[in-house]
Amino acid sequence: MSISDYIEARRREVEDALGRILPEPPDCPAVVHDAMRYSLLAGGKRLRPVLCLASADAVGGDRASALPAACAIELIHTYSLIHDDLPAMDNDTMRRGRPTLHVVAGEGQAILAGDGLLTEAFNVVARAPRPRDYERALTQLDVIRMIASAAGAVGMVGGQAIVLLHSGLEEPGLLRPSTLLGAALSEVEGREARPTPSLDADGLRRMHAKKTGALIRVAATAGAMMGGGTAAQVEAIDEAAGEFGLAFQIVDDVLDVEGASADLGKTAGKDAAAGKVTYPSIYGLEQSKRMATACLERADTALRRAALENSQLLAIGRWIVERKN
Amino acid sequence: MSISDYIEARRREVEDALGRILPEPPDCPAVVHDAMRYSLLAGGKRLRPVLCLASADAVGGDRASALPAACAIELIHTYSLIHDDLPAMDNDTMRRGRPTLHVVAGEGQAILAGDGLLTEAFNVVARAPRPRDYERALTQLDVIRMIASAAGAVGMVGGQAIVLLHSGLEEPGLLRPSTLLGAALSEVEGREARPTPSLDADGLRRMHAKKTGALIRVAATAGAMMGGGTAAQVEAIDEAAGEFGLAFQIVDDVLDVEGASADLGKTAGKDAAAGKVTYPSIYGLEQSKRMATACLERADTALRRAALENSQLLAIGRWIVERKN
Repeated sequence: MSISDYIEARRREVEDALGRILPEPPDCPAVVHDAMRYSLLAGGKRLRPVLCLASADAVGGDRASALPAACAIELIHTYSLIHDDLPAMDNDTMRRGRPTLHVVAGEGQAILAGDGLLTEAFNVVARAPRPRDYERALTQLDVIRMIASAAGAVGMVGGQAIVLLHSGLEEPGLLRPSTLLGAALSEVEGREARPTPSLDADGLRRMHAKKTGALIRVAATAGAMMGGGTAAQVEAIDEAAGEFGLAFQIVDDVLDVEGASADLGKTAGKDAAAGKVTYPSIYGLEQSKRMATACLERADTALRRAALENSQLLAIGRWIVERKN
Repeated sequence: MSISDYIEARRREVEDALGRILPEPPDCPAVVHDAMRYSLLAGGKRLRPVLCLASADAVGGDRASALPAACAIELIHTYSLIHDDLPAMDNDTMRRGRPTLHVVAGEGQAILAGDGLLTEAFNVVARAPRPRDYERALTQLDVIRMIASAAGAVGMVGGQAIVLLHSGLEEPGLLRPSTLLGAALSEVEGREARPTPSLDADGLRRMHAKKTGALIRVAATAGAMMGGGTAAQVEAIDEAAGEFGLAFQIVDDVLDVEGASADLGKTAGKDAAAGKVTYPSIYGLEQSKRMATACLERADTALRRAALENSQLLAIGRWIVERKN
């Protein structure tokens, strides 16, 4: 099976499951159900759930036991796009070639649909598969905890908060959060708000490790853990996925410079127009591309160490680096 | 120990735990940490976590094993207040006598702090207590699933979506969600958006059962389950907490008419000014108060059935009905 056939087969498994996973009316109010589905089923690469299923495969596990975690992570990814697109954040009106949710449903319903998807993710991963023994139950609790860490304040949410602080897009004025929140906090807790570090090359890497890296990594590790991988296998896959996450972000930044808006389904050149700090803005285009390739090499080394059978993981890494959108 | 001493002792346990529960800088960006703490530690009745701990007590369980679930539910309650207060929702600028988070931190950071609290809740409840056997691990997974259901699209998020649809506060125009989302959905899925029911007396009850009732109920049931209660005990406590949740909402509506803004920490009379459908607006003040008392009587009947030792639960129900804020 070619890698593109493999990815397409996994993607179809994910699409099928996602189409069945959300609560239905009348238990779920129609407006929330419709809003969640509009964003969840709008296409997308399904990189994270595909990586999750491929990691279960790579450790010789049962893909079905990783499918709930794979879907949960895609629900979380979708909610993060909805909230990131809001006027108070990146203020994007197009996503995957369609109007963003707040444009068609209003801001309030978009915020709620995001909240609903995030919450439903934990329902999905706590509900299935039913663990058949004590060890499996502990693994499932660990996976829930790890997904929450990756998605939360030390992970994706924290990364987006750093982006927002540095974007200058939040009207009126970048300094409002620190000064006003600082004054408010010192009343409540008798201390000033802490400073937030500036965004140099190292800060950029750490920010992306939170904003996109953490969820990509946990997709892979959750798949390996639910698939019953050994500690050494899980560790190697975690390391490789960390490299994939970094490569993903570098390529994202490169595509914003080089890509066509039609391929991307969103406006190219937006980063530069917004004055964002990106890999090309710090390292230049050619060096950025070399850095993405170096990620793959390090991922290869990590994966070889764990001696995985028929792993498609490195090929998925190559797909990440060679993609056009 | 008097009931007010009992509640105060439980509240202190909760405050202590909440003060230690959030991730700290440098792992958690300072801005997110500060924003989450500003809202989480702003006081509040702590009704839900107190009810959770009291339910563990009522089944003769160990309160410490219910404390993570109690805290998780308070994190979720706090996030819901932050998001409900946003300009795109209820547009409230004061909460518990202080400026709301989006006023001091900006809308974007307020949305993210809410997302962070919601996500962290599942980290907390998946992390602790470490289950000592298979049965306890399954219970913990069930509790996570139940909390997610109560907080999500079939519960609290769904309730707020119904409120928002009917509030008329979402500018510009109440009908925007259904028409535009409907057109967008029919492109994506080849079907129209479904209609949302109107808000009569029965619709009001169902809306509140989602928006406030579900989280109050799961606080009690999670406490009883983590405390090792029998199925009959959990069922009785669930039924009583359902009555408490209804009483809570009726009293909330009554206080908005009769209460003083200084006691409430927010503007009284806001419901009527906004033309909201409330218990007093449908049933009148006196009948509403009788309905709240009837809730307590039904709760008493349910709790007696389960023969709970030294339960403080009914007294907590009385506290809910007799409160001034």
